[in-house]
Amino acid sequence: MSTAAPRPAGHDQLWSVDEHLEDILATVRPLEPIELQLLDAQGCVLVDDVTVPLSLPPFDNSSMDGYAVRVADVAGASEEFPAVLDVVGDVAAGQADLPEVGPGQAARIMTGAPLPPGAESVVPVEWTDGGLGEGPVTGMRARSLGPEGARGTVHVHRPAEARAHVRAKGSDVKAGDRALEAGTILGPSQIALLAAIGRGSVRVRPRPRVVVMSTGSELVQPDEQLATGQIYDSNSFALTAAARDAGAIAYRVGAVTDDAETLRSTIEDQLVRADLMVTTGGVSVGAYDVVKEALSHVGDEDEAGSGIEFRKLAMQPGKPQGFGSIGPDHTPLLALPGNPVSSYVSFEIFVRPAIRTLMGLEDVHRPRERATLTADKALTSPKGRRQFLRGTLAGGEVAPVGGAGSHLIAALAHANALIVVPEDTESVEPGTEVEVVLLG
Amino acid sequence: MSTAAPRPAGHDQLWSVDEHLEDILATVRPLEPIELQLLDAQGCVLVDDVTVPLSLPPFDNSSMDGYAVRVADVAGASEEFPAVLDVVGDVAAGQADLPEVGPGQAARIMTGAPLPPGAESVVPVEWTDGGLGEGPVTGMRARSLGPEGARGTVHVHRPAEARAHVRAKGSDVKAGDRALEAGTILGPSQIALLAAIGRGSVRVRPRPRVVVMSTGSELVQPDEQLATGQIYDSNSFALTAAARDAGAIAYRVGAVTDDAETLRSTIEDQLVRADLMVTTGGVSVGAYDVVKEALSHVGDEDEAGSGIEFRKLAMQPGKPQGFGSIGPDHTPLLALPGNPVSSYVSFEIFVRPAIRTLMGLEDVHRPRERATLTADKALTSPKGRRQFLRGTLAGGEVAPVGGAGSHLIAALAHANALIVVPEDTESVEPGTEVEVVLLG
Repeated sequence: MSTAAPRPAGHDQLWSVDEHLEDILATVRPLEPIELQLLDAQGCVLVDDVTVPLSLPPFDNSSMDGYAVRVADVAGASEEFPAVLDVVGDVAAGQADLPEVGPGQAARIMTGAPLPPGAESVVPVEWTDGGLGEGPVTGMRARSLGPEGARGTVHVHRPAEARAHVRAKGSDVKAGDRALEAGTILGPSQIALLAAIGRGSVRVRPRPRVVVMSTGSELVQPDEQLATGQIYDSNSFALTAAARDAGAIAYRVGAVTDDAETLRSTIEDQLVRADLMVTTGGVSVGAYDVVKEALSHVGDEDEAGSGIEFRKLAMQPGKPQGFGSIGPDHTPLLALPGNPVSSYVSFEIFVRPAIRTLMGLEDVHRPRERATLTADKALTSPKGRRQFLRGTLAGGEVAPVGGAGSHLIAALAHANALIVVPEDTESVEPGTEVEVVLLG
Repeated sequence: MSTAAPRPAGHDQLWSVDEHLEDILATVRPLEPIELQLLDAQGCVLVDDVTVPLSLPPFDNSSMDGYAVRVADVAGASEEFPAVLDVVGDVAAGQADLPEVGPGQAARIMTGAPLPPGAESVVPVEWTDGGLGEGPVTGMRARSLGPEGARGTVHVHRPAEARAHVRAKGSDVKAGDRALEAGTILGPSQIALLAAIGRGSVRVRPRPRVVVMSTGSELVQPDEQLATGQIYDSNSFALTAAARDAGAIAYRVGAVTDDAETLRSTIEDQLVRADLMVTTGGVSVGAYDVVKEALSHVGDEDEAGSGIEFRKLAMQPGKPQGFGSIGPDHTPLLALPGNPVSSYVSFEIFVRPAIRTLMGLEDVHRPRERATLTADKALTSPKGRRQFLRGTLAGGEVAPVGGAGSHLIAALAHANALIVVPEDTESVEPGTEVEVVLLG
């Protein structure tokens, strides 16, 4: 609920970063699964175990281009004393009607084609004369040059063991095996396996749809002309891009003016396409901070869990934060501060984990590392606040870029990490080991 | 040019992985840059240096919600002996018409609002009585509760130094500074900076459009019924997903039957939307390997650099490979082998770097690491071939999953790395340090 009306100092609770994050992650639930076509499910999390319905390969087949033979017929064969076999025809990949290979016979066979009845082994074409009677060959005559297929005799120059160059039915996976476990993230090779076992669609948690909205009467769209007192809207662009990076389908709403009624109706309009809403600006202690004001009137407040709570966090940047749910579906909403660096850091620390929780991922946080601080002088940090400084990390060393100011967007664009200075630390000497959050 | 017709053994050159890759990267050129809207340029490479056209912030502004004051007026102020100032009005963010702050006066000011003329400093609202005359407050009255704005007097409880809580014009970036260098990859924070300096669009190399086509008369689409000798098409799904992962816009063409004329006309049809074409299957020494056959008749062979060359590589899996360019625009085409693991490994080693070269990226390869092999027994590898085995990498140790068979797609789905066994190595003992390619 809004705390926009002034109240005496002293009752002004500071929440920790961890408390706020915990509240968010306790509220946001993974999205309901839906059945998606394989390529639409890329990057999504599988909801059920997938069982193999048929063995792979589904039949014994050749791993080489060559000749399907009987072992006894090629025993002892050499280039000097080749086995001479009658060729009964071709077996191409996908061919259903297979020739029978009898004693003294061979079938010309292609990679992936079913081993024909009677044959026990495959000799690669390079071990034969290819039916040309002119010594070893390096390949077969293209079918366009001999559309009638192979006939006549073939000279085989080497013996073959039973099952040589044969991929046995079920040697990859067997019917009833578990192909993939619930919780698997579907990348290219998981999609390959699902396709290979005949699954054209799978049940996954879909990508969350995230609506990003910046607020502020001072905001102008890029490429337009700035008037006095105006600046360009950058937050809605940055957070839309960041939401996509996190795995979401992100919709950018242009900057909304500091008018509670306009903001309220814009949010209500956008709810229909939002699994998560993110606003920036208007959450602090100013008289024109209309996000606070507007959001206490949105949604069904009679329902438990509905409504937005505004807090001050023991965090720099990112002190003022709002979180809750709105509308008939209790859509989660995070109201971030409006300074570009504050909103970006808040996104990384709070919104990204929320998006990844909606996706059903287990690992929702950015990876963190320990690194040695390199700097000209000690970093200072306000007592009792967790500070996130922008840094460049390379080879186990991290250097701060830009200052602590939450408006230093140029420095942010050159950072690849956030340096975390804990609440109880007011100064960090160069050479100290610090915790860093890896960005991107 | 096609080598589909048989020829005597001995002339059968084996190319190295490095030679083939070098030829590909020497041929593929970065795409021509185009101007894209900021959010369409996400993940793309900037072509020109971007210069800051205006200083950020564009004007001195307040970093707090508070009161804009003159330093002399609040000198020595305390809660016991507050400075009492006449409030001349509000300054909201985006406000163009600013009140003049004279001696003994203050303007109520919001975060981001321009410092009004006459004011030298900002005192946070928490250092004042908020104009209510009842001691320190924690915030301002919302504008909805006092739409007329601030009037009357304010009690200030602490002094402020000159420029305190003022963000100076140009303190982030100055007009003429270089915002971003050519070659920068545009992520969320680079997009933030571009928007902040008013750039709504930028010149970047676009995402390449990659057309993926599998070939083989044995291939059936997932969810359909398999007849004898048939298998499901998985390559076109896997490589479409992998091309997207690499940064491309990927189009999947269903499996094409082993008929040269059909293949040729399908490729010609697809050329219009391809910056790169990838086929799988039909490149080996079999009589039905129509990709080789068809591709020697596609494109303008009178032009230098046109045409597809088929090679055998000293590589396992992935021995047969085709590469060249086709059609009037000399569109690059990679013809990969058809076995699922062969095609996937070939994609990682050859196609991914080609896609990233088209994007203009400098770092086109997957990262590689050294890791210690853990296995029950020594790995064996054919002499003279560079072998890529599927492995699971964790904590500096890598274990092989599945065998060397190029049809073992289930094992691939559980791998996160490729183990590289060099050409001159035939056996790798457990405990040996090996090179691994990190996937995804």
